[in-house]
Amino acid sequence: MSYIEQKLSEGKVFKDPVHGFVHVSDQMIWDLIATKEFQRLRRIRQLGTTSLTFHGAEHSRFNHSLGVYEIVRQIIDVTFADEYRLSNEERMTALCAALLHDLGHGPFSHAFEKVFHTDHEAYTQKIITGKTEVREVLLRAGTDFPSLVASIINKTHENQTLVKLISSQLDADRMDYLLRDAYYTGVSYGKFDMERILRVLRPSPDGNGVIIKYSGMHAVEDYLMSRYQMYQQVYFHPVSRSGEVLLWKILNRAKSLYHAGYEFKTNPAQIIPFLSDEVGLDDYLALDDAILTFYFSVWQQEDDEILSDLCNRFLNRRLLRYVDYNPSSDADFYNQLKGCLEKAEVDPAYYLVVDSSSDLPYDLYKPGASSGKTPIQLLLPNGDLKELSTESPIVESIGGKIRTDIKLYFPLDFIENGRIPAEIAEEMVTLIHEKQNKKPS
Amino acid sequence: MSYIEQKLSEGKVFKDPVHGFVHVSDQMIWDLIATKEFQRLRRIRQLGTTSLTFHGAEHSRFNHSLGVYEIVRQIIDVTFADEYRLSNEERMTALCAALLHDLGHGPFSHAFEKVFHTDHEAYTQKIITGKTEVREVLLRAGTDFPSLVASIINKTHENQTLVKLISSQLDADRMDYLLRDAYYTGVSYGKFDMERILRVLRPSPDGNGVIIKYSGMHAVEDYLMSRYQMYQQVYFHPVSRSGEVLLWKILNRAKSLYHAGYEFKTNPAQIIPFLSDEVGLDDYLALDDAILTFYFSVWQQEDDEILSDLCNRFLNRRLLRYVDYNPSSDADFYNQLKGCLEKAEVDPAYYLVVDSSSDLPYDLYKPGASSGKTPIQLLLPNGDLKELSTESPIVESIGGKIRTDIKLYFPLDFIENGRIPAEIAEEMVTLIHEKQNKKPS
Amino acid sequence: MSYIEQKLSEGKVFKDPVHGFVHVSDQMIWDLIATKEFQRLRRIRQLGTTSLTFHGAEHSRFNHSLGVYEIVRQIIDVTFADEYRLSNEERMTALCAALLHDLGHGPFSHAFEKVFHTDHEAYTQKIITGKTEVREVLLRAGTDFPSLVASIINKTHENQTLVKLISSQLDADRMDYLLRDAYYTGVSYGKFDMERILRVLRPSPDGNGVIIKYSGMHAVEDYLMSRYQMYQQVYFHPVSRSGEVLLWKILNRAKSLYHAGYEFKTNPAQIIPFLSDEVGLDDYLALDDAILTFYFSVWQQEDDEILSDLCNRFLNRRLLRYVDYNPSSDADFYNQLKGCLEKAEVDPAYYLVVDSSSDLPYDLYKPGASSGKTPIQLLLPNGDLKELSTESPIVESIGGKIRTDIKLYFPLDFIENGRIPAEIAEEMVTLIHEKQNKKPS
Amino acid sequence: MSYIEQKLSEGKVFKDPVHGFVHVSDQMIWDLIATKEFQRLRRIRQLGTTSLTFHGAEHSRFNHSLGVYEIVRQIIDVTFADEYRLSNEERMTALCAALLHDLGHGPFSHAFEKVFHTDHEAYTQKIITGKTEVREVLLRAGTDFPSLVASIINKTHENQTLVKLISSQLDADRMDYLLRDAYYTGVSYGKFDMERILRVLRPSPDGNGVIIKYSGMHAVEDYLMSRYQMYQQVYFHPVSRSGEVLLWKILNRAKSLYHAGYEFKTNPAQIIPFLSDEVGLDDYLALDDAILTFYFSVWQQEDDEILSDLCNRFLNRRLLRYVDYNPSSDADFYNQLKGCLEKAEVDPAYYLVVDSSSDLPYDLYKPGASSGKTPIQLLLPNGDLKELSTESPIVESIGGKIRTDIKLYFPLDFIENGRIPAEIAEEMVTLIHEKQNKKPS
Repeated sequence: MSYIEQKLSEGKVFKDPVHGFVHVSDQMIWDLIATKEFQRLRRIRQLGTTSLTFHGAEHSRFNHSLGVYEIVRQIIDVTFADEYRLSNEERMTALCAALLHDLGHGPFSHAFEKVFHTDHEAYTQKIITGKTEVREVLLRAGTDFPSLVASIINKTHENQTLVKLISSQLDADRMDYLLRDAYYTGVSYGKFDMERILRVLRPSPDGNGVIIKYSGMHAVEDYLMSRYQMYQQVYFHPVSRSGEVLLWKILNRAKSLYHAGYEFKTNPAQIIPFLSDEVGLDDYLALDDAILTFYFSVWQQEDDEILSDLCNRFLNRRLLRYVDYNPSSDADFYNQLKGCLEKAEVDPAYYLVVDSSSDLPYDLYKPGASSGKTPIQLLLPNGDLKELSTESPIVESIGGKIRTDIKLYFPLDFIENGRIPAEIAEEMVTLIHEKQNKKPS
Repeated sequence: MSYIEQKLSEGKVFKDPVHGFVHVSDQMIWDLIATKEFQRLRRIRQLGTTSLTFHGAEHSRFNHSLGVYEIVRQIIDVTFADEYRLSNEERMTALCAALLHDLGHGPFSHAFEKVFHTDHEAYTQKIITGKTEVREVLLRAGTDFPSLVASIINKTHENQTLVKLISSQLDADRMDYLLRDAYYTGVSYGKFDMERILRVLRPSPDGNGVIIKYSGMHAVEDYLMSRYQMYQQVYFHPVSRSGEVLLWKILNRAKSLYHAGYEFKTNPAQIIPFLSDEVGLDDYLALDDAILTFYFSVWQQEDDEILSDLCNRFLNRRLLRYVDYNPSSDADFYNQLKGCLEKAEVDPAYYLVVDSSSDLPYDLYKPGASSGKTPIQLLLPNGDLKELSTESPIVESIGGKIRTDIKLYFPLDFIENGRIPAEIAEEMVTLIHEKQNKKPS
Repeated sequence: MSYIEQKLSEGKVFKDPVHGFVHVSDQMIWDLIATKEFQRLRRIRQLGTTSLTFHGAEHSRFNHSLGVYEIVRQIIDVTFADEYRLSNEERMTALCAALLHDLGHGPFSHAFEKVFHTDHEAYTQKIITGKTEVREVLLRAGTDFPSLVASIINKTHENQTLVKLISSQLDADRMDYLLRDAYYTGVSYGKFDMERILRVLRPSPDGNGVIIKYSGMHAVEDYLMSRYQMYQQVYFHPVSRSGEVLLWKILNRAKSLYHAGYEFKTNPAQIIPFLSDEVGLDDYLALDDAILTFYFSVWQQEDDEILSDLCNRFLNRRLLRYVDYNPSSDADFYNQLKGCLEKAEVDPAYYLVVDSSSDLPYDLYKPGASSGKTPIQLLLPNGDLKELSTESPIVESIGGKIRTDIKLYFPLDFIENGRIPAEIAEEMVTLIHEKQNKKPS
Repeated sequence: MSYIEQKLSEGKVFKDPVHGFVHVSDQMIWDLIATKEFQRLRRIRQLGTTSLTFHGAEHSRFNHSLGVYEIVRQIIDVTFADEYRLSNEERMTALCAALLHDLGHGPFSHAFEKVFHTDHEAYTQKIITGKTEVREVLLRAGTDFPSLVASIINKTHENQTLVKLISSQLDADRMDYLLRDAYYTGVSYGKFDMERILRVLRPSPDGNGVIIKYSGMHAVEDYLMSRYQMYQQVYFHPVSRSGEVLLWKILNRAKSLYHAGYEFKTNPAQIIPFLSDEVGLDDYLALDDAILTFYFSVWQQEDDEILSDLCNRFLNRRLLRYVDYNPSSDADFYNQLKGCLEKAEVDPAYYLVVDSSSDLPYDLYKPGASSGKTPIQLLLPNGDLKELSTESPIVESIGGKIRTDIKLYFPLDFIENGRIPAEIAEEMVTLIHEKQNKKPS
């Protein structure tokens, strides 16, 4: 029997708070979970700095990856069981892709990528096809198998139905993270009836994705509403973004010090490849939340005041505060604040930061094909297909309408604790109060 | 100490699956619950025929009334505790109104009112101010107290904040029934974060209702989305409406037989006052689901074939089937079906029924004041008030946009079981198939 | 294809708050649900008078019967799928038995059977094999099929594994009612990890039931603990039993009046067969909660004061109150109270009632075979079987140790409202206070 | 107004998945949460190695500490509100103690303390009374306030009711961790009706703790059963203990290498004080999960094979496997395995490890006073107090009866992957198989 068809002598389960259980019966899935590249995901939080706002959200990408696998498994083995038979190879390719789709995420991906120009999607491809334990396991199924799996994730696989299961407007990835992030944060918004969606999912007749039976329209409305709410309430939360801003500035500062020849008390060995822009796959895989956190911790003792202050802020949750910011009408306000900081010798490059929610990886439902994403199709009772938003006024209204939220972050504590001289502080307080009380235009 | 202020020696609780516990510490509330008019609500289902579609939804109005009371109690005693002190009398008036607001509902209200022109809201007023145990309890708080309570329910009380707690676009009544009906049906749509809404509720500064702090906007969006979903998925469900149609036609037939001098085998003593249009308050209070169900049960043995068939259908869930129906374009179809039934001697007055969801008590959020309902106001951080839909694109889209769903009901089983002669049956089947396959215009 | 193998063209689901969905794909199951005998279960509450204590518990036996079917379906089609292949006939026999096992329950079974000596188990057998729609459907699968189904329910079927799925110490019936009753009452006690139990269930090697893999022992402990708690907290609740006492006495009084030639204002047509002890199957099936409730309602207007008072009490929840009662040591107390009531011309036969929880259908786990029930066997890792309580100290302690709870019920309101003359009332109050303050011996 | 009475201008909430919200209205609590010693708890997992078994359990002690605070807040401000008025100082002392009770926990406490003989309880005292931000905040309430708070935690405070709220057989600490650990692991065992327990809790009349009203007995039974199940199923899980064994051996090896003068490639600066037994408070506070994990990560590249192998195992979840082990009867087996390992040059000091669940901090309910813990007292309806286990057969049976579970851990992978020569490996396999198949004596 080929490796792809090999079953465990007894099915294994992982107790999962979101799906009840994650079921594994395939030897290959079991072996992939045991690789060190997959185990590394235990040390990378799913939601980065969100736990600074929602303390419950301390779960890892390991957690989420098992969940995505489980959803795809249910779709293939239960929903599609009778109607849409996949070959054993197709089935296993999809399961592996589901499990491994986030393998390339590094610690605090968003801020890290912004500073070091790494790309987690590219790294997922490299880990699957490069010199890793993961590839070794995949090769047992054939020389081409690693690239087959990778092609599902990069969306070039010829079976677009499988591709769309893992990445589309209604995919296992989004379904898992909404449910999971809602569970761990404790908010009620992310919940929707996944069981019903799984029941009404069908492969699309043109082989180009999945469609939804008309009777499931309201469950999908609910799912899209959850997505909208989770973005507005959790993922774009200005306090979590304040943590992101600190991370971004810490890494920026470290990079700038490195290039200026600064001598770190503790040599940041694992970060050097990124600072010097000579990154190998092993360097990338050696990073995780603990490594970065270790350096943030020791950098609190660095002589560079900016670096040590920013690290102290991040670890001890002494966040920058914010006001709403409108780039077109608030330029004066920005410049005045900037002037104040400069007068007080607080570097605005690190302490006066504009952050826009639109910089975050963001995806609300967009009906138009122009978004590059296949829209969700409904299968009407008479056999026709119609794009979801033409049937649902709710979805029509959500489509693309999210408001970009821009904040200006600044160190309120410097104003309060004397770090900024009293006179300047007073001026800043006045500026900020005026800004806050200004009627929205 | 006045009766209004009298506390139970020990607080009582009712275990409630939706709110955890319903807490009662006031003697007056305790006494009201013990009245026979309130206990009667145990014998009236909250959702009438919905359990024919969602078998879990067998809960009574007793259940719901306690829930509404509990929400108002939490708002008054917890949310408003410090900021908005009510007098003892105001507090108790609001609690009583919350508890008693549905007192006038009869069995299967919707169909019953359609046939007998009773009005449950008017009866609520009568029960509170008429010769009842409820009024006796209320009188212990003063001669005017019954009419004070009634005036909250009929919205004429001078404190409109209290009025709006019980009846407005965002009130304790709606919050309880959405959560409760979702719980008992088992659907996931009705859930929203009530705890958060209760935290952000404030009396409106103009004394004309309640407003919502801006930070709670998304919780309110979620609540309105739940309302939309529950209406579309549960309350307007065409199968439940098929049960409603039967009820309506049963009562119609009984009325028509009575006026034609038909002699019932079992004298429908409790229904006679309604048939003869001489209804006293006691006659109304004597009715409940059991009384009507008893007659439906014995009417299965009546000689009148229509009455006995309709009762048999209702009790044994042999429902009429339906097709979508468009009054403007489907007139031919309707007339052809009607012709067939007449040829087969099946009375179309009872067996070919158009039902529109817009006949149901229906209330989606409407932003405009023209609806007669105060729109929901948001309290912005700068102190301004804005109507919800101007801030929320979701709400803007839901406002008033629900689609009316019209169905035509007919006895498919008569076609299948030979009650309608084969030739006519064949013609009907062809008509119905054509209708179902017609592309929507 | 035989009727037993016939599938619906499209699988149907019932939304169920406990199991998520109840799945039906077999034509036969669909047809059985549509019979009038099964639909009748919608009109019979699962928990009788429990909703007088836990207002949420208004669910019907229809509800529960679908749940038991769903559990057995999951065990057969999922848990046993690969390891224990049943023939199509065996499978359908078990599914039908699960669905129909409670068919013979009448309204308020416990009190009704006590007075009229009917037996719901015998009626289940009669309905399955007698002249009913249910039997007609079953006959489509063969002449013997009705008695095959009946033999699972009465435990004589040769495949004892199937018998034990539906009736044993760990069966689908108990699992469903614990979860369901907990859900509707809202108590947290009834919950246990059914999904895990279903995963570790195996047919026993001797063909004599089901066993549990050792790894599931703690889930079973939890299930038994839930059972213990639900009995102590919900099923034996003294307030619900107070409702039972009233029902019992109402029916007793009606019977006694009937035999004394009393003329009822409204002829209790549907109850006459029971009063006169000439009950046919159709008479039994004609009863439901609504019929009995109708008569309780009209009997409130009867001239017989005892009957009308008891009915008023039952419908308006004016319950008898209670004290703990020890038959061996409280005889004096009982006789003194009885004397008081007699002096006050309150008939103690109806108003002084001893009720023991041990009269209720009661089944805690009993390890010994002497109970007539097969004990639960654990499958140890080395292949041995051991009785559960030998491995689990918790189970050992629960086994058979429930305390019988005996209460004495009496009309406290008669003492308070003047129905009992002041002097006697005072004596009674003294007696009761003394009883309540007596240290337990 | 004194600092102790100072309220925030607006109450703050933390969204909490277990309690819904954690409410903070006191300035002092807010300030304590903001200290760096409290924020450090974000970087220390509540359950150490448990996430190797239950992947969902990645929550921190920060999470749990807020939960304990919230429970105590509810008891003081709601349950006790009317009946048991505390002074403002007493109230704040208890709230601070609840929040800070786990402050002294370090990373992977259990294994760490075993190797370095630190004591997290002593450190909690030191952090509260030593040179820390926490003490600075506490001092604002008076010179004695830090030691007052500390005395609640070390149980010497004169108000034993407050002491027992935080540490007793039924305290806020245990209630929170059972509910929280159940939520994050996803197991159903840890759930119990905390809301009910909070409702029936009373200060004991002798001022020596808290008691439970009789009506809450079953809720407490359920809580104790949950505790039993969580210990058996989660806390003592042999796979998590396998992770603990690795941690223990890693730290042991590092210590032993250090004392042998081994030169680490990366100087373990933060661990040196512990290796050299010269630990200051700041050294202790500098540690967290990230610091240790960083060193485990870099130690994978150390030349010492044992250290690098053990670290690789821990980070990549290559755990030791286990068999049941009975010290009195399995000595031969142990010695034979040990002999094999020695022959294969695998050091048994690191690779053959006996671990007993009784080494874990363990506390099942013990009724006797001999345990040093006050037993749980029930308040009977007649005013008497009785120890819980005398009333509850369930509790009687749980009391002290937990079975110690002893496992012997060994590197099965060395046997399978050739690290141990084939001949010896075969011998070991035979030994292990014999052991596993031996009937339990």
